[in-house]
Amino acid sequence: METSEESSARETRCTESRVLEFPGEPYSVRVLQVGYCLAQPDGSCRADGTVTLVSGARRTILVDTGGPWDRDSLVARLRDRGLDPGDVHWVVGTHGHSDHVGNLGLFQEATVAVGCDVSVGDRYLPNHLAEGRPYRIDQHVSIVPTPGHTGHDVSLEVRGTSAGTVLVAGDLFERCGDRDSWEALSENAALQRVSRQRALRDADVIIPGHGLPFMTHRNTPPSLLP
Amino acid sequence: METSEESSARETRCTESRVLEFPGEPYSVRVLQVGYCLAQPDGSCRADGTVTLVSGARRTILVDTGGPWDRDSLVARLRDRGLDPGDVHWVVGTHGHSDHVGNLGLFQEATVAVGCDVSVGDRYLPNHLAEGRPYRIDQHVSIVPTPGHTGHDVSLEVRGTSAGTVLVAGDLFERCGDRDSWEALSENAALQRVSRQRALRDADVIIPGHGLPFMTHRNTPPSLLP
Repeated sequence: METSEESSARETRCTESRVLEFPGEPYSVRVLQVGYCLAQPDGSCRADGTVTLVSGARRTILVDTGGPWDRDSLVARLRDRGLDPGDVHWVVGTHGHSDHVGNLGLFQEATVAVGCDVSVGDRYLPNHLAEGRPYRIDQHVSIVPTPGHTGHDVSLEVRGTSAGTVLVAGDLFERCGDRDSWEALSENAALQRVSRQRALRDADVIIPGHGLPFMTHRNTPPSLLP
Repeated sequence: METSEESSARETRCTESRVLEFPGEPYSVRVLQVGYCLAQPDGSCRADGTVTLVSGARRTILVDTGGPWDRDSLVARLRDRGLDPGDVHWVVGTHGHSDHVGNLGLFQEATVAVGCDVSVGDRYLPNHLAEGRPYRIDQHVSIVPTPGHTGHDVSLEVRGTSAGTVLVAGDLFERCGDRDSWEALSENAALQRVSRQRALRDADVIIPGHGLPFMTHRNTPPSLLP
């Protein structure tokens, strides 16, 4: 049984990465845009969400779409990868904040998941995300419920990359080392804490909503953590 | 003091309207798309959100944008009113569900409010919506917090129409007479119940997320309700 102190130490133990691509078979993960959140002197905050592409031979999945102002740059970033919006099969919006779901309308052909709602056009599909059960896209990729930041956040879990299991986590984590900031942005900090601990236990790499990817060192025994 | 029975009776007392336009000075309210939610035999649900235009001489406000699949029809509906997306000054997404915020990216020039987040481009403005305080756009139009369906729902309150105060309420109400359905769709039914009762007290017309506008009969004394 891990103590809360050990668990807290585990949370501090992450290593930010400047690597934005995690190749794998059958899926590779590529961060297209690194999110940010910068407090301004006037009390406002400049912010945008991370956008991540998960590509495989059979399926292309986009996780988050940035803010509405990102429309043209998102199309350009996809084009740099040889893709049109119509080539994206799935769009996963980790939660319904405007810096993450600003460009859903680019993806008219895609299956869309925003939080716990999964839809194909105007047809909303039955699922159990809101009850805490994953939605399996295939054996390598699942939408997993990670609530707390909002009531119905989800993350995309990608297994089998060269770096192990990658969790594209939206605002479950702001960034590596966000212990000073995530609770103030949380609708339900107790719930989010549980979701964060599960993520740190199960993923090797976490792609957060407003910062660079980070390694979780999940195999480091808590007793050896600094 | 109104009893809960009276309050419940008040909730039943609404009259659906086929009128979709509420002219006024300085703002008129026009429903561009009537939302729906239709259970299907296979367990899925066909659903789309109501889209409403609030027009004044100085300011044009769109409340909700429908699902991603509505992009072209939304542009056409705006064009029918002589508007391009660039003519919309404010976009208010009542909450971050995909059938309401599917087309934020059409409105690159607008100030955008989704739930409690108000932004101009990537600059997120300080506000007190999450603490329950309205965000006044001007003396006639305010964004008001109406949480419960999600943690951070808002509505747009428009004063001074020919029908009185109109509340464009998103999924605070599914439709007139939604007593059989709203709680199952609510993240926090106790909170939403309070938000609903306030709305029924303060608005003359409510435009719900998935049905026709309805009159609240707020001036009918509870003792005279059926």
